[in-house]
Amino acid sequence: MELLSSTKTHAGWLKRYRHKSTSVKGDMTFAVYLPPQAETQRVPVLYWLSGLTCTDENFIQKAGAFRKAAELGLAIVCPDTSPRGTDYPNEHESYDFGSGAGFYINATVEPYSGTYHMYDYVVDELPRLVEEHFPITEKRSISGHSMGGHGALICALKNPNRYQSVSAFAPIANPTQCPWGEKAFTGYLGNDKTTWEEWDATCLVKNLIGQLQQGLPLFIDQGESDDFLDEQLKPQALEAACEEVGQPITLRRQAGYDHSYFFISSFIEEHLEFHFNALS
Amino acid sequence: MELLSSTKTHAGWLKRYRHKSTSVKGDMTFAVYLPPQAETQRVPVLYWLSGLTCTDENFIQKAGAFRKAAELGLAIVCPDTSPRGTDYPNEHESYDFGSGAGFYINATVEPYSGTYHMYDYVVDELPRLVEEHFPITEKRSISGHSMGGHGALICALKNPNRYQSVSAFAPIANPTQCPWGEKAFTGYLGNDKTTWEEWDATCLVKNLIGQLQQGLPLFIDQGESDDFLDEQLKPQALEAACEEVGQPITLRRQAGYDHSYFFISSFIEEHLEFHFNALS
Repeated sequence: MELLSSTKTHAGWLKRYRHKSTSVKGDMTFAVYLPPQAETQRVPVLYWLSGLTCTDENFIQKAGAFRKAAELGLAIVCPDTSPRGTDYPNEHESYDFGSGAGFYINATVEPYSGTYHMYDYVVDELPRLVEEHFPITEKRSISGHSMGGHGALICALKNPNRYQSVSAFAPIANPTQCPWGEKAFTGYLGNDKTTWEEWDATCLVKNLIGQLQQGLPLFIDQGESDDFLDEQLKPQALEAACEEVGQPITLRRQAGYDHSYFFISSFIEEHLEFHFNALS
Repeated sequence: MELLSSTKTHAGWLKRYRHKSTSVKGDMTFAVYLPPQAETQRVPVLYWLSGLTCTDENFIQKAGAFRKAAELGLAIVCPDTSPRGTDYPNEHESYDFGSGAGFYINATVEPYSGTYHMYDYVVDELPRLVEEHFPITEKRSISGHSMGGHGALICALKNPNRYQSVSAFAPIANPTQCPWGEKAFTGYLGNDKTTWEEWDATCLVKNLIGQLQQGLPLFIDQGESDDFLDEQLKPQALEAACEEVGQPITLRRQAGYDHSYFFISSFIEEHLEFHFNALS
């Protein structure tokens, strides 16, 4: 791992690294915030998955999360949103497909099937790496925004014993049924829509029955003035699926808030507290 | 005034406007955060002046200030860092002179003397505008970062009865004696260094004697790992000048912190509380 920067903030340290990833067969960059408590003890960790067009830096610059993370003693790990080392045809042309838009799945369609394995990277490779190198426990939670909210949900719902809790801001909650998801899944997974369902939170939640005695702690904030709400996000579909299988869900509809980091920063501290309680 | 955007955050509203400025003879953009209390009462206001290369947006995106501003009931107004409508020779070529680097002074050297009147804009025109259009009181405080810390200090020290308090993060505290200040003051004010002193906080503080019974509340945070500390910032010169004239100063040297917004966000809430106390 190559240390790119090390910055003190809120009495802890924010570090960015580049490393060779076996999952995506190329260099990946991530950020990790280590709260002051990490100097003397192992701390639990929250993975944060960002949305379309983002890198590992949007959250660390804009979310205003470190005050509360430092208070609680919670590490935060922020991966990038796609592989960056390739140059496939049209890979860099859309904001909602290819680079910056990995959707946290394992692609099966060439050429993306060679490197776009963001699911393996986020669920397996990155936790192994950070648990080896930093003073963090194996207690993990996961959260994210928009495409990253979708990512957090599918990572947790596919691995309900691997994460203590999951939350999301304005997630793409039912990607098989919205334009962003249809474009991405067609490009990464092909036209057979039955293969899409294992990457859709609303489909996956139905598999939870019987896997967990009390369900997975699941918390979503959604702005009611979010321009993408009706066409792309569809949290009500996930809510209905949760109710169908008895999975608890807290879905808050926040009047007046949009899709931006100004929305995330308004409620991030409550999400950190939610995760910290589940991790403790 | 043209409303550019209106975004809900921390239960208040962040608005950006463009307006025709008489001081700088062209369009200017600013941001204003109105805390939720402003819906039912007038609230006091903090002016935030940003540093080299910044616009009105850096602080609103990166400082993490709105949580505490909403809690206290404090409006925050963020102007841009220079006029933007001109295209003088070399105006856009350096990061530390011309556009993005107005230094909050009134230029006297052509062609900058025609428009670079950021001092008049920040001290007179902008407060008149926002006090007319928003539910804020005439109680004002001022703060800023680096070049904006210099700006906050000179605005307050030249008008000790106009501001209730002043604070700064890593200010250029003695610009007549550092490369950034020498370059800017030569370009904006000319070679006669005696004209520079009225724009240098360390020189200005000596004028405070007898103007205020208890001095001006003045609070500075400085990172000890700030790469610009020794060559450009020189807070110790301001500290010595304050001690000489009996002006109280709280100068905190923060171990490990650099010049970035990660430093500002770590301590911004304490600055807001400091100002709110002075404003109350």
